[in-house]
Amino acid sequence: MTPPKKNFHVAIIGGGIAGVTLAIALHHRNISVTIYEQAHAFSEVGAGVSFSPNAVQAMKFCHDGIYNAFEKVCTRNLWPSKQKVWFDYLDGYNFKGPNDTSTERGRQDIEFTISNSLGQNGVHRAHFLDELIKLVPQEICRFKRRLEDIHERIRDGKLILKFADGSEEEADAVIGCDGIKSQVRQIIVGADHPSAKPSYTHKYAYRGLVPMEKAVEAIGEELASNSCMHMGPGSHMLTFPVNGGKTLNIVAFHTNPDDWAEYPHLTRQGTREEALRDFEGFGPNVTNLLKLTESDLSVWAIFDLNDHPVPTFHKGRLVISGDAAHATSPHHGAGAGFCIEDTAVLATLLADERVCSPADLTAAFAAFDANRRERSQWLVRSSRFIGDCYEWQAEGVGRDFKKIEEEINRRNGMIANVDIAAMVEEARGELGRRLGHRASL
Amino acid sequence: MTPPKKNFHVAIIGGGIAGVTLAIALHHRNISVTIYEQAHAFSEVGAGVSFSPNAVQAMKFCHDGIYNAFEKVCTRNLWPSKQKVWFDYLDGYNFKGPNDTSTERGRQDIEFTISNSLGQNGVHRAHFLDELIKLVPQEICRFKRRLEDIHERIRDGKLILKFADGSEEEADAVIGCDGIKSQVRQIIVGADHPSAKPSYTHKYAYRGLVPMEKAVEAIGEELASNSCMHMGPGSHMLTFPVNGGKTLNIVAFHTNPDDWAEYPHLTRQGTREEALRDFEGFGPNVTNLLKLTESDLSVWAIFDLNDHPVPTFHKGRLVISGDAAHATSPHHGAGAGFCIEDTAVLATLLADERVCSPADLTAAFAAFDANRRERSQWLVRSSRFIGDCYEWQAEGVGRDFKKIEEEINRRNGMIANVDIAAMVEEARGELGRRLGHRASL
Repeated sequence: MTPPKKNFHVAIIGGGIAGVTLAIALHHRNISVTIYEQAHAFSEVGAGVSFSPNAVQAMKFCHDGIYNAFEKVCTRNLWPSKQKVWFDYLDGYNFKGPNDTSTERGRQDIEFTISNSLGQNGVHRAHFLDELIKLVPQEICRFKRRLEDIHERIRDGKLILKFADGSEEEADAVIGCDGIKSQVRQIIVGADHPSAKPSYTHKYAYRGLVPMEKAVEAIGEELASNSCMHMGPGSHMLTFPVNGGKTLNIVAFHTNPDDWAEYPHLTRQGTREEALRDFEGFGPNVTNLLKLTESDLSVWAIFDLNDHPVPTFHKGRLVISGDAAHATSPHHGAGAGFCIEDTAVLATLLADERVCSPADLTAAFAAFDANRRERSQWLVRSSRFIGDCYEWQAEGVGRDFKKIEEEINRRNGMIANVDIAAMVEEARGELGRRLGHRASL
Repeated sequence: MTPPKKNFHVAIIGGGIAGVTLAIALHHRNISVTIYEQAHAFSEVGAGVSFSPNAVQAMKFCHDGIYNAFEKVCTRNLWPSKQKVWFDYLDGYNFKGPNDTSTERGRQDIEFTISNSLGQNGVHRAHFLDELIKLVPQEICRFKRRLEDIHERIRDGKLILKFADGSEEEADAVIGCDGIKSQVRQIIVGADHPSAKPSYTHKYAYRGLVPMEKAVEAIGEELASNSCMHMGPGSHMLTFPVNGGKTLNIVAFHTNPDDWAEYPHLTRQGTREEALRDFEGFGPNVTNLLKLTESDLSVWAIFDLNDHPVPTFHKGRLVISGDAAHATSPHHGAGAGFCIEDTAVLATLLADERVCSPADLTAAFAAFDANRRERSQWLVRSSRFIGDCYEWQAEGVGRDFKKIEEEINRRNGMIANVDIAAMVEEARGELGRRLGHRASL
């Protein structure tokens, strides 16, 4: 049975994973929605993304089609025995003792393995998005619209969206799914607030793709076929198969004290030679793979909202979701999954039968903020910590592989072991309290 | 000692008596203010206006210069014995019995006299305004700006004023002194709300000026030199000296069941002949004066906010003052005085040391609404009643001159006998409660 159409219209800003999943979840709940994307089509930057069990639960909760899209495009570890392996963790640096002057190649054994019920599942962001957009009717999409400002028209309370091309659109609620450099966030907190802009984590990453047969030659079948984390001091590299196993995806991180001069650009052109310098002293697994990449490599600056977390996810009938609200470094591999958790909670709140009119939207967004902020800002902090673990720099952990394993398992558990239905139910309870509080004023 | 400059900027919409007195009162309290007028200069429509003792108190409270301007341009009754007379009331109709077929002119004695401490004091609106604007520095005035809409810019909370010429200005608060057809009122209550537009009282008035010597010839020295109200069934006429006693001002009202087809125009061109038809059967005092007017007479439709009083004078940091808030028919002669009362209260609240930042302005305007709405909406109702008294149509009163006199005295007392300092103090108390309520939320 189709629920009755609500008396409000929602504008989603941004057509990445957060925005498109939300458009799907709202549209299929019969909520009037338009999605505005600044590019000429929906697009995601970045190559690979993986999802943990919480994210898969959230997908199913939002709309079965989202889960089906994920299943259709994801690539798991190739070895049947490694289907539940998230990453095998290796010492990528000390493949032989520092004082070993022999030329013999050192062993690079797997130090420990982190597993979960889903294992690793690499999804190419663009392929995933291509599947998702099939669930979004063309008529609710507007492209080449870069949001500049939002006004509230006092006479009728409509929110007026002002775009860079001079066009204006109306909505009753605006949901900023506009990513790490979110304009909606800047509007909510104010341009001068420290959380208006993300800050540099002083890590960047080279990203490369290597044909699988070459990768197998370089590091052997086991490591090339399945997801690996090569740890080391001040740098670390992760690899996992994508494209149905035909390609090995490489993400090679390096910590560097310099500022990122290119901001607001978060990528710059780099070279394979630079990458090899940043991984100097690392073992042949790492260096031989790097040598197989293209000579020009894209360098991706890791910015996040850790230093200045946003004080609130909403202001009146404006709210931020996904990276716009809690942009995180990628070390937990959980950022995209949290976007879908956000979608599950937002869609539930907006579809709640008590949310009927524009005036109820503020309560819904306040409930979203109360439900999501603590957990998602924890992720941002934890991701920084775990990224340092991979580089033996985390306080109280260092190069103690046992402790690193424990930290990962404990924190991954906090990410994965949630009950999305219960989370959403809690948000509905909070909505009731907010609506009640409003009624008593 | 100049009080510290506040951290907000106020926009006043409309440069009539309400707007200009407010600009003076705020500017001289060191509050940053700009006044926007749609015409190419400040202007008032309508010829005469008079002020009762409450208004004079309010003038002095706002700024001594306002009182001085009033004293400079006002014309009182010419006879020293009538300095405290507000109006002499006459039967303008039954100057002889209806069955009296003699040609002898009937007596038209003064039936009763209404006095107050100030007597009658005619002020030509334009002359008064000319004096007032000397107190307003040129740099805070903007002309040819017709307000169309107001937005709140979410990122910094600024109110964006959008004018018909395409220009935009910013402010932290907007005070609509934009009269009976107020655009700010329409923005506050919504264009579809019944109070967005004024409604027709089914009375209109011819306005004319007669040279004093001709008036004396027509109706004698006593009636021409001093303010008179000529009552009658379905019509009434008031006369008072203006222009230092060189001219007699005539306002001749008529009740008519037809709609006012010219709306939104509130005046139309009429003729002396029409006026004479509307006053058919009236005595020679009335008809002889009408015969002395120009052959083309302006007809002024009496609209007010009686049928649909506004539910609130403010919405957030928007507020309405003067006719914009409580446009009244003119029968009490108190509308302009209430504008100045409004100014006294608004200026006090905005100058209060607890009102420092834009966030405090909502509390100040809520206090203004609480303080002013009941009294000013009562005036609108009472003015309608008293207008009907003058035409022997008021329920329970009819043509009973004793009762008419009692009603006028009782109601005039409610208008005049207020303590402006106490009213303003009460508003400050309400402000404290609103600020406290906000702090406890």
